[in-house]
Amino acid sequence: MSDLPASAVPARWEKTGETLHANCRLFDVLNARYRHPGRGQEREFVIMTAPDWVNVVALTPEHRLLLVRQFRFGIDDLSLEIPGGVMERGEDPLAAAQRELREETGCTGRNARLLGRVHPNPAIMSNVCHLVLVEQVQRTNDLEWDQDEEIEVLAAPVDEVYAWARAGRITHALVLDALLLFAPEWERLKGGGAPAAKTGR
Amino acid sequence: MSDLPASAVPARWEKTGETLHANCRLFDVLNARYRHPGRGQEREFVIMTAPDWVNVVALTPEHRLLLVRQFRFGIDDLSLEIPGGVMERGEDPLAAAQRELREETGCTGRNARLLGRVHPNPAIMSNVCHLVLVEQVQRTNDLEWDQDEEIEVLAAPVDEVYAWARAGRITHALVLDALLLFAPEWERLKGGGAPAAKTGR
Repeated sequence: MSDLPASAVPARWEKTGETLHANCRLFDVLNARYRHPGRGQEREFVIMTAPDWVNVVALTPEHRLLLVRQFRFGIDDLSLEIPGGVMERGEDPLAAAQRELREETGCTGRNARLLGRVHPNPAIMSNVCHLVLVEQVQRTNDLEWDQDEEIEVLAAPVDEVYAWARAGRITHALVLDALLLFAPEWERLKGGGAPAAKTGR
Repeated sequence: MSDLPASAVPARWEKTGETLHANCRLFDVLNARYRHPGRGQEREFVIMTAPDWVNVVALTPEHRLLLVRQFRFGIDDLSLEIPGGVMERGEDPLAAAQRELREETGCTGRNARLLGRVHPNPAIMSNVCHLVLVEQVQRTNDLEWDQDEEIEVLAAPVDEVYAWARAGRITHALVLDALLLFAPEWERLKGGGAPAAKTGR
């Protein structure tokens, strides 16, 4: 680009301490104290610490994706998402994916593998969301909903799920991330002689 | 699917009140009180209220995307992202996109339009992130970084940005959302007789 914008090499600030600002049950809010390595200046920044999360791209043998619809208190509305939840301390992401899938939908699958890891909000949140693909998903267990969970489970053709995402019917940021990272794998699976997605519901 | 999972129609809980749990400068944490319409049961849930955000897919005439790299205190590390930030109260999303683009990179562009709106975290956050495409982006202004902002600005071929996202070099959830929603538009632009992306840097 002829007119590449001016820019600076960003420094890595050094953390010099942190104190608890508020315990919020699902997460802690900290005041983190940082020193700029060049200017020596010290400043406090608000950050949230929360456990890591996992979201699951759960693909049935018929090449449908499992979706869950539930009431979400943050947006005060229903939200259409893929299964997922909070990981337990020290839990393996693939095991966490199978656990959340089983608890929310009663389904389990095979060939679980990591599609990627994303940061829900690098500016203020420390945690990671693991995005996991599970194949050959089918009903194997009873549901184990947490208190206050009330979940509608759908199985929709993959391409329809992408269309819903682009049309604004799916708005959860981390679900859309999973769809972005699943896309190359889906192209491969779709062309690979596996059963074609059906168009009915 | 022959064995569609069991599920329930999720109820819309009714908000009966909310109290401030913690003021955290960038956001407030509230205790929101909800009543289940069927069971009558009342429960409190932690939610965060923050201003809406905007993220900008800024496309140069040479079909490169502007990226910004900066230190992010949440993850205590550098992060490669697209320009964006916090919207002002009552600000139009397209105007906010142009403002953030100008402040962070000194660039402005034309033909701004909304790619979509996502919820950063429907479970606990009330706010929306607007994803805006701006075309014909070029350097027009001086930088106006906020205090403590120190930003490296890059312009990279679009397909390279997608490859970086899939390889885990870009991990910001809302940036990946913008790439998902920009993809159909990019396919159209790429094939539309507009200048082809160059492969150099």
